[in-house]
Amino acid sequence: MALPKTPALTVDCVICDAQGRVLLIRRKNEPFKGAFALPGGFVDLGETVEAGCRREVREETGLEVRDLRLIGVYSDPARDPRGHTVSAAFLAKLPAAANPTAGDDAASAEWVGDWRAHPLAFDHAQILEDAEKILHAGAGA
Amino acid sequence: MALPKTPALTVDCVICDAQGRVLLIRRKNEPFKGAFALPGGFVDLGETVEAGCRREVREETGLEVRDLRLIGVYSDPARDPRGHTVSAAFLAKLPAAANPTAGDDAASAEWVGDWRAHPLAFDHAQILEDAEKILHAGAGA
Repeated sequence: MALPKTPALTVDCVICDAQGRVLLIRRKNEPFKGAFALPGGFVDLGETVEAGCRREVREETGLEVRDLRLIGVYSDPARDPRGHTVSAAFLAKLPAAANPTAGDDAASAEWVGDWRAHPLAFDHAQILEDAEKILHAGAGA
Repeated sequence: MALPKTPALTVDCVICDAQGRVLLIRRKNEPFKGAFALPGGFVDLGETVEAGCRREVREETGLEVRDLRLIGVYSDPARDPRGHTVSAAFLAKLPAAANPTAGDDAASAEWVGDWRAHPLAFDHAQILEDAEKILHAGAGA
């Protein structure tokens, strides 16, 4: 039985250190070539979204993330100029000493203190805003 | 630019009334024909997951759900015998007076008091367990 055609499934990962910096990549390819973005990419057939998220982070930053917390599902049909993609976005924490090494689709990978100072690819600024709400809710509880 | 092939995207909806009953359908088609299931289905290209969830609930139960709360993303490659599907599952509330009318893929639609007494399609028992955790966390807060 063939499955119907649906939006393409992606994952994105907000990785924070204890100082509130986030790990961003610079995109090597279009769309948004050269812009900062969250590590992430397309989910492979046969892998869970969590496994896809860990794989993409590993490929683009060389780092391993463990506990993933779901931030949300981002599905605006206009969010990706290539076509309709839907992203499951996760939150992870790493120590500030974690030293990224850019790979795969990432031209660079670095800890960024003030992500609001930069234009971000896709709807990644919205994902980061939502991640901060979760972090702040946790800190205030 | 063609997008890569990824798992097919679906939505499922846990709809509760104030008495803790849940709105389930009986599946008209395989897989799990005749079993109870959450209302849901495949996301169309060009619609958000929230719009897809409301549409599937409308088609299968005749009811309109408004506020949707994300329960989780379910992506085990073995969760659907047709192939790899990934479901964004949402929680909604309706008054007990809401009277469902089965349609589309649903042979029936009814409020069920003890869903644990029935075998459920796919991983819908797990989704219901997770929804109850959210509901109980909210009640205890």
